[in-house]
Amino acid sequence: MNYTSIKDIDSLSKWVKSAIKIKSKPLKNKKLGKNKTLGMLFFNPSLRTRLSTQKAALNLGMNVMVMNFTNEGWTLEFEDGAIMNQGASEHIKEAAEVVSQYCDIIAIRAFAGLVDKEKDNAETVMAGFLKYATVPIVNMEGATGHPLQSLADAITMEEFKTEHRPKVVLSWAPHPKALPQAVATSFVEMMQLQDADFVITHPKGYELNPEITKDSKIEYDQNKAFENADFIYTKNWSSYSDYGKITNSDPNWTVTADKMKLTNNAKFMHCLPVRRNVIVTDEVIDSENSIVIEQANNRTYAAQLVLQKILMTLAPKEANKTKKSKKNK
Amino acid sequence: MNYTSIKDIDSLSKWVKSAIKIKSKPLKNKKLGKNKTLGMLFFNPSLRTRLSTQKAALNLGMNVMVMNFTNEGWTLEFEDGAIMNQGASEHIKEAAEVVSQYCDIIAIRAFAGLVDKEKDNAETVMAGFLKYATVPIVNMEGATGHPLQSLADAITMEEFKTEHRPKVVLSWAPHPKALPQAVATSFVEMMQLQDADFVITHPKGYELNPEITKDSKIEYDQNKAFENADFIYTKNWSSYSDYGKITNSDPNWTVTADKMKLTNNAKFMHCLPVRRNVIVTDEVIDSENSIVIEQANNRTYAAQLVLQKILMTLAPKEANKTKKSKKNK
Amino acid sequence: MNYTSIKDIDSLSKWVKSAIKIKSKPLKNKKLGKNKTLGMLFFNPSLRTRLSTQKAALNLGMNVMVMNFTNEGWTLEFEDGAIMNQGASEHIKEAAEVVSQYCDIIAIRAFAGLVDKEKDNAETVMAGFLKYATVPIVNMEGATGHPLQSLADAITMEEFKTEHRPKVVLSWAPHPKALPQAVATSFVEMMQLQDADFVITHPKGYELNPEITKDSKIEYDQNKAFENADFIYTKNWSSYSDYGKITNSDPNWTVTADKMKLTNNAKFMHCLPVRRNVIVTDEVIDSENSIVIEQANNRTYAAQLVLQKILMTLAPKEANKTKKSKKNK
Repeated sequence: MNYTSIKDIDSLSKWVKSAIKIKSKPLKNKKLGKNKTLGMLFFNPSLRTRLSTQKAALNLGMNVMVMNFTNEGWTLEFEDGAIMNQGASEHIKEAAEVVSQYCDIIAIRAFAGLVDKEKDNAETVMAGFLKYATVPIVNMEGATGHPLQSLADAITMEEFKTEHRPKVVLSWAPHPKALPQAVATSFVEMMQLQDADFVITHPKGYELNPEITKDSKIEYDQNKAFENADFIYTKNWSSYSDYGKITNSDPNWTVTADKMKLTNNAKFMHCLPVRRNVIVTDEVIDSENSIVIEQANNRTYAAQLVLQKILMTLAPKEANKTKKSKKNK
Repeated sequence: MNYTSIKDIDSLSKWVKSAIKIKSKPLKNKKLGKNKTLGMLFFNPSLRTRLSTQKAALNLGMNVMVMNFTNEGWTLEFEDGAIMNQGASEHIKEAAEVVSQYCDIIAIRAFAGLVDKEKDNAETVMAGFLKYATVPIVNMEGATGHPLQSLADAITMEEFKTEHRPKVVLSWAPHPKALPQAVATSFVEMMQLQDADFVITHPKGYELNPEITKDSKIEYDQNKAFENADFIYTKNWSSYSDYGKITNSDPNWTVTADKMKLTNNAKFMHCLPVRRNVIVTDEVIDSENSIVIEQANNRTYAAQLVLQKILMTLAPKEANKTKKSKKNK
Repeated sequence: MNYTSIKDIDSLSKWVKSAIKIKSKPLKNKKLGKNKTLGMLFFNPSLRTRLSTQKAALNLGMNVMVMNFTNEGWTLEFEDGAIMNQGASEHIKEAAEVVSQYCDIIAIRAFAGLVDKEKDNAETVMAGFLKYATVPIVNMEGATGHPLQSLADAITMEEFKTEHRPKVVLSWAPHPKALPQAVATSFVEMMQLQDADFVITHPKGYELNPEITKDSKIEYDQNKAFENADFIYTKNWSSYSDYGKITNSDPNWTVTADKMKLTNNAKFMHCLPVRRNVIVTDEVIDSENSIVIEQANNRTYAAQLVLQKILMTLAPKEANKTKKSKKNK
């Protein structure tokens, strides 16, 4: 079992229930991970993911080995058949097979480069580990998705939703730097598994990958989208059609208290880190309706659920055998 | 309970006694930290503090998560109300609240910038975490103090002092780089809690913050200061009045064997790292009277005492609740 | 006991047998390392060594503290008597003595600089720690040797050798960057302890240190060397005589399937990371005869054997005493 995409969730409602159960007794399965090792490989910076995933593993009694590939390891080659006489010192094939021998689960963070759409869509790093690793892979944010984040988002919405079928709005907001679409993409995929009135709002030109959004509703008028919303999930992303570019930085898209007044007393969500007074005003993020801190707290339980599910699939490891055959995926 | 300043010590003599007791049986409280997590956040390099604090936490059975903010995380914004459209990706408010959910204690290292006296005196990073974190904070060297170092210094002096009221000299020494005043400042504050004949000696222009030194004796003649001293504590710092500048690099201030002859067979102390033959000659630091290695060893027990005291104040954590209310400080 | 060179192995055959035994039950000595701490200090990048040594320590129940000296600590001075008014902030003497107080074993990686042969041969960093540390030292690749790698190589050859006395070929191969001789050097020293037909092959000018190779056979015709070989161990290194230079990058030295046909169905070995289609063709490294992944797996058991041997020599540590006297080496 891997967890690299929202598609790896068989039943979102069951997963969310299990995660909430874990949250109520986080140390209950402290023995499950005994003598199991999580390898966390970072190709990009990380705060929440780094600490919450580590914490989740510790709650399960696992050992954790953290490695920043960019400054602690070697530059990797991902192309099959490459003549490696340039910058890369090691091929993903060896790296993934070797690390699989030291770890029972490998978690990977590798952001989109935002230069080459095709390459990003191919999820070079994640796909390389999926192809060559012989142990389960967990996605700690890839080029096109951040499924641990979206699972935490689902848990948080479950905790804060009221009785009726909620209206959930994913709203683009401006940002001074070009950011990946990963969080928004996984959020859309996760929402498509929910019974909700789901609306995406952004300026024209900021349409997400249409193969992902499919028939999810897009409303270009942010005010209209906010009407009667129960959850406002804000996030910036760079253009997908004009790939990786900032084509709009209109401050009118910043989430303000006035806009929140259009909603049904909506909860405000953001994956963090968030640029205050650019993405959202202090007034909104500091209000009672802001649940960004609770959302970040649920990162631990999302990760713990995923690790727990994987640990339960792991047959007792025969340590004296070199793992050569690829696992069933 | 936090430990961010010497002022957090209620009784120095009791703390020193407790630390010496811990040193004699460092694993006695191995269960106290079980399932508790120390988050160590570094905004600057660290050798002794990094390893001794980690070791202290392990001795108490804690989990440790180490993070170098500068290359592993996001640049933080510390100003309230800032429009975050520049370099900083995350506000201290979110960072501190979020990390508090993954850790039971947060330890922080954030040096003085030595450019803006007011900003350094405001202890921007430490104060930000104190304001927004919901778990205890430990200072692993801030802009204006290094209280874990000074506690280790007090332990070391207690171990090596003879019967009588000792004469303790804090002596400035030259250094090729501008260094913070933090170690010297905390040392002065710690000495003011001791029954000792305490003298600070440095060239004119190197007066420490007068709000700290108060009526502690300053002697500008180093030789005179050294007379009959029992402990020579050497440390460089940059000018406080001409803030962060090197206004003197007179090699006559280097601690030599000849100067040590003026003392009452004094012990030589330094917090390390030390520049040999600039701060102190090889002859002195390699002599029997040098206790710098013992001093560094006590870093573990100073940290362990502080962590132990904090752990004992922690109510059994309700893991399923998001901590929203600020702790009593 | 230290492990800084192949010379520290008293009986290679016994060590290899013990390592294979450990591999069959890697968690058998989980209690041996309880409350013992391994400090891993990196002056250079590392993937396999970083993770396998950590894994080995965890298998023995040890605590591990990892530190990258280059960006997390201070620049060290190694010269005795230096007037430290330049870049280095701390002398190896203090660093080694201090870290010895926080760790029970110190493991170090410090590559050759490939500029100053004399300095590299002096193993400045490793020798500094050996001289001043008061706890055992493990070499995770120094300037002139990589004995953990060679021990893993010996384990791997033992597992894959057939009945008869094997022919083992160490073959140089081209590489775009100048690499240290460390791996090749330790391999030669290890092979000199084995009963095998051992041949080194490389272009003229790539002779390794003659004080190491002694009377080991050198064959300048790679094809001739490969004839009837049972193991082809490939590795690039820069020139030793024209120190640190690339004097040849002849692609004819790349290990190809055609060359492997000259052998006795030889196993292909490489320490990794390996440059595909420069050092060796995809066809060879992806063939059934390639055992590079198994070889990397044995890094864990080589490290675990070394740590286990050292742990068994450690007297119960008197934690309340400062270690001042140097250990027996």
